[in-house]
Amino acid sequence: MSLLVVGSVAFDQIETPFGKTGKIIGGAGSYISLAAAHFSDDVALISVVGEDFPKSFLDRLNTEGVNTKGVEVVKGRKSFFWSGKYHNDMNTRDTLVTELNVLGDFNPVVPKEFRSPDFLMLGNLSPQVQMEVISQIEKRPKLVVLDTMNFWMDMAWDELIAVIRKVDVVTINDEEARQLSGEYSLVKAAQKILDLGPKYLVIKKGEHGALLFNRAKEVFFAPALPLEEVFDPTGAGDSFAGGFLGYLSATRDVSFRNMKRAIIFGSAMASFTVEKFGLERLENLTSNEMDERVQEFIDLVQFDIALV
Amino acid sequence: MSLLVVGSVAFDQIETPFGKTGKIIGGAGSYISLAAAHFSDDVALISVVGEDFPKSFLDRLNTEGVNTKGVEVVKGRKSFFWSGKYHNDMNTRDTLVTELNVLGDFNPVVPKEFRSPDFLMLGNLSPQVQMEVISQIEKRPKLVVLDTMNFWMDMAWDELIAVIRKVDVVTINDEEARQLSGEYSLVKAAQKILDLGPKYLVIKKGEHGALLFNRAKEVFFAPALPLEEVFDPTGAGDSFAGGFLGYLSATRDVSFRNMKRAIIFGSAMASFTVEKFGLERLENLTSNEMDERVQEFIDLVQFDIALV
Repeated sequence: MSLLVVGSVAFDQIETPFGKTGKIIGGAGSYISLAAAHFSDDVALISVVGEDFPKSFLDRLNTEGVNTKGVEVVKGRKSFFWSGKYHNDMNTRDTLVTELNVLGDFNPVVPKEFRSPDFLMLGNLSPQVQMEVISQIEKRPKLVVLDTMNFWMDMAWDELIAVIRKVDVVTINDEEARQLSGEYSLVKAAQKILDLGPKYLVIKKGEHGALLFNRAKEVFFAPALPLEEVFDPTGAGDSFAGGFLGYLSATRDVSFRNMKRAIIFGSAMASFTVEKFGLERLENLTSNEMDERVQEFIDLVQFDIALV
Repeated sequence: MSLLVVGSVAFDQIETPFGKTGKIIGGAGSYISLAAAHFSDDVALISVVGEDFPKSFLDRLNTEGVNTKGVEVVKGRKSFFWSGKYHNDMNTRDTLVTELNVLGDFNPVVPKEFRSPDFLMLGNLSPQVQMEVISQIEKRPKLVVLDTMNFWMDMAWDELIAVIRKVDVVTINDEEARQLSGEYSLVKAAQKILDLGPKYLVIKKGEHGALLFNRAKEVFFAPALPLEEVFDPTGAGDSFAGGFLGYLSATRDVSFRNMKRAIIFGSAMASFTVEKFGLERLENLTSNEMDERVQEFIDLVQFDIALV
């Protein structure tokens, strides 16, 4: 098993200034695994859905190279449902409905054949669930990446710190980095968070790009692509994580140099996701489009200065 | 004359979470010309001060290669004074005092020997003053750059649009780009603003970097350097403009490729300014420090992806 992903598979209902969806498929696990599958056909997903969830989507994931044996389907219950409305700036949103349903008592079970993954991605879930997955892993992966959010800092601080101590990479947004560290400066925040244990920190700044820090105080910055329209930001961070880990697991190289490349592929993946509602853009993404998009990132930041 | 700069020379009094100054020297013209003088010793400044202004600062500018013959000293009157207090996030501030004084009826006179500059920088002043300077220029410069702000969009819209039509490069921040264009997307905003006449638009995003757009829809992005501490943001945008124009005027190359380099040098200059109150850091800047800083920008964004 090259890449094991744990994350929600769910229904979303989204309203943006550009329109409104009905119930569509979302969830961190869906975005992460679909994005990773662009680079690797050796991905497995651990999640839970209710019996209301369409089997056709799991079949679709299988077709893309995502093994869904670890996606539990709970009879007689409903899938996680989130509904939200984005403000005009697309950076802030109101949650209208959160129905945890099967996610409320999710007790992840990692099938035996997935217990020695090379790469492990812990999508945004309760720290207890993330820790439970780690405890079932039998061989230390090359890289364990954890995504989390402010909600868990408010609700389960001690459990979150405990799981952060166990991972190699943390991905959070800028406000969350400030909350987690108590530092306003992101440079200081990064060093405090890395002092907890992780080797790398990715700070996602949405339309303002992403920063990668390591303990040697190296910093890498990847811009977000300036887009004519951000149609729906849902899943951008998860697509980023999926592209990042998909690329790393396909290249099997966890050097800082290769992580920079992975950050660019992750950023490219996020830039596609926001172009349409939900998973639509990721489901229809070609390798040619990805190459063209990465070239746009190269052109965006490339300059030549010869210092003497 | 290689570079002619028009901008305020003034007193500031600044409060940030890190401390509070007395009356110190500031003003767009001071930051721009001092930053540009790092690259070129053929810079002239057009401005106005009161008789309360220390001649020693003008002497200092002269020493650095800035000709101050065009800085009018008005007997019996006081210099422009601005006082402001930055909030904890350093991105927002309250203006406490604005005393226009001599700037209120500034009627710029460009000395005869400065009327054919290769490069002209119109610092943030009323569009009427900016237009008056343009009208005194006898030979079309290689590049005319205009900085402005939301205040003039609110107070003198028609005059601002008229002067924007006359220049090659406009520099504004992201909120101002949105106000000027009526578009939220910066990509769309840029094209609308370029439709007014300028060939290039620089959108300054403060701690989130800067974007350079041209009419061929090329985009270049330069990050801001992640700093441990932003001590005082005053003058960052003007230092950016000064570095940008200083580099362009020293290299005499206005290709898009060289503008990218100029944007990096401008960003480096801004990153120094915010490290201390007022002009302090710019006044004590060595070429070695500048080279090291530019290398930090290179390291920050450099990655190698070979697309096949």
